[in-house]
Amino acid sequence: MKFENFKILATASQVPKKVVNNDELATMMDTSDKWITQRTGIKRRHIAVEETTSSLCTAVAKQLLKKSGVLATEIDLIMVATMSPDYLTPSVSAMIQGNLGATNAVAMDIDAACSGFVYGLKAAKQLLMAETPKKAILIGGETLSKLVDWHDRSTAVLFGDGAGGVLLENASKSAGSFISENLKTFGELGHHLTAGQTGVPTPFMTQSAKFSPFFQMNGRRVYRFAVNKVPESINQALNQASLKADEIDHFVLHQANRRIIEKIAETLGVPMEKFPINIDEYGNTAAASEPILLDELVRTGSIQRGDVVLLSGFGGGLTVGTMILKF
Amino acid sequence: MKFENFKILATASQVPKKVVNNDELATMMDTSDKWITQRTGIKRRHIAVEETTSSLCTAVAKQLLKKSGVLATEIDLIMVATMSPDYLTPSVSAMIQGNLGATNAVAMDIDAACSGFVYGLKAAKQLLMAETPKKAILIGGETLSKLVDWHDRSTAVLFGDGAGGVLLENASKSAGSFISENLKTFGELGHHLTAGQTGVPTPFMTQSAKFSPFFQMNGRRVYRFAVNKVPESINQALNQASLKADEIDHFVLHQANRRIIEKIAETLGVPMEKFPINIDEYGNTAAASEPILLDELVRTGSIQRGDVVLLSGFGGGLTVGTMILKF
Repeated sequence: MKFENFKILATASQVPKKVVNNDELATMMDTSDKWITQRTGIKRRHIAVEETTSSLCTAVAKQLLKKSGVLATEIDLIMVATMSPDYLTPSVSAMIQGNLGATNAVAMDIDAACSGFVYGLKAAKQLLMAETPKKAILIGGETLSKLVDWHDRSTAVLFGDGAGGVLLENASKSAGSFISENLKTFGELGHHLTAGQTGVPTPFMTQSAKFSPFFQMNGRRVYRFAVNKVPESINQALNQASLKADEIDHFVLHQANRRIIEKIAETLGVPMEKFPINIDEYGNTAAASEPILLDELVRTGSIQRGDVVLLSGFGGGLTVGTMILKF
Repeated sequence: MKFENFKILATASQVPKKVVNNDELATMMDTSDKWITQRTGIKRRHIAVEETTSSLCTAVAKQLLKKSGVLATEIDLIMVATMSPDYLTPSVSAMIQGNLGATNAVAMDIDAACSGFVYGLKAAKQLLMAETPKKAILIGGETLSKLVDWHDRSTAVLFGDGAGGVLLENASKSAGSFISENLKTFGELGHHLTAGQTGVPTPFMTQSAKFSPFFQMNGRRVYRFAVNKVPESINQALNQASLKADEIDHFVLHQANRRIIEKIAETLGVPMEKFPINIDEYGNTAAASEPILLDELVRTGSIQRGDVVLLSGFGGGLTVGTMILKF
């Protein structure tokens, strides 16, 4: 067991072309730009028209190969974290594998909702452990717009579509990026945030059976969960790494709501400058939100090699996942 | 890195109460017991009425704890392989985690369709790698009946519902069960077997958008894939383990079609007695089929401690996954 850690060779992201701003939503339902902005920080979101989760993820995967100079056939693992796959089979990751011609890659999707990217990083890290060099593509990709009831102003204003990902290579313990992690699941709270009942009622079911694809959320309860459990998870990951909060260069948090992030920053006693935000542009893109933000920060030069980056995802499950990396 | 392997501490399974035999299907569509039996080996299947994927999986998880004497709080990981979760969020694994009170377990679902159980074993094996003892519950669980068009006789007769699983503990290389594996994905063939388009068309999509939850299959193409690629995968896993086919005590294959299994046995030159079959009772239960069969073989005493068991799953993706274990 030589390679126990991993390095990020490249980041990439892709969002749908169509932008829907708050004013456009106000023509579809009883809401307003002011109401949405004040409560969530969201100004607009990108919404799939022709794009699908697999097409966005394929675009990200192609960028990752191009940026890193890695060949498709050199990839050993393709993993997509998603709660909005095109199909329940084939997996999005298998579709990407086929689209890339990544004939040596094993493909699987994982679902841990908004914590999916960090859970996926953990799973990919473990799957890369080997005595030989290995490479993986991990993408968080979503088209949440197809799980939204566009008549429900309490949820429709929150979500957006997009994909982001990383190309990973395994590495020795000392040469790798991984510093520490803290993953927690709170299944007893899962009913506070549900989406995407799959399938349809069968002739064998009782007549009361009903299937809804749409998001249903107890917003207050999920807010309370996030502002309590995320700082807890972050502090545990910091403790495990023997790091103090002010030694983290960038807190790349799941972009669910600006107010949640502000509250978490306040609880941790860290200035908001350390918490980059792009929810104004994309809304909540679940498993895609952290890798999209990560890629933006890398592309704009905000994140430099050597920076210490803390990723933290939280949401459906309910789940929390924090990972600290030396970029 | 002390614990690189794993042991199976217990197996369990649960299927819905309602049995639907071929004659009952013949009252719903133009088919017959003779037609179905000759082409597939299926006589009946268990179909969810009140049960859900999460309720079946929770029952399996509770059995696993009871049989092994392990406490819910001792579980570090709960993973469900499924292509028919209750919801896209929360994951089935998070629901189980909540139902068990497995407060120390991280939960995530994985989707690799009919190869899901073997892909899940691989992921769970890697996630259990640690310097300290760790335990995981891995379940393959499906309610495929909700993804079936019960008017389409070409697919409706094939699928059934159920769940099966294992309780795993990490182990040193020599004390563990794992011998070898071979996992392959063929994403370029994925369109030959699709099911469960998620979500609904949005107001932003073009009018031609259509979402179907139902199975669609090019049966001939999938048959050809299985009878070629499964023996190839099995032979590669055997080679890697330096084992001959006749040194395997039990070939626990995905139960998709009796004729596929007969053809694979013939290609490998192994008598059918080594290929246990229960498709007559359950139909194709995707990720659940191997762990249900494994549990039956353990319960009836067919599989004994020390036996060498080869698991091989194949299907949606398209994917193949083979793993050889010393039980």
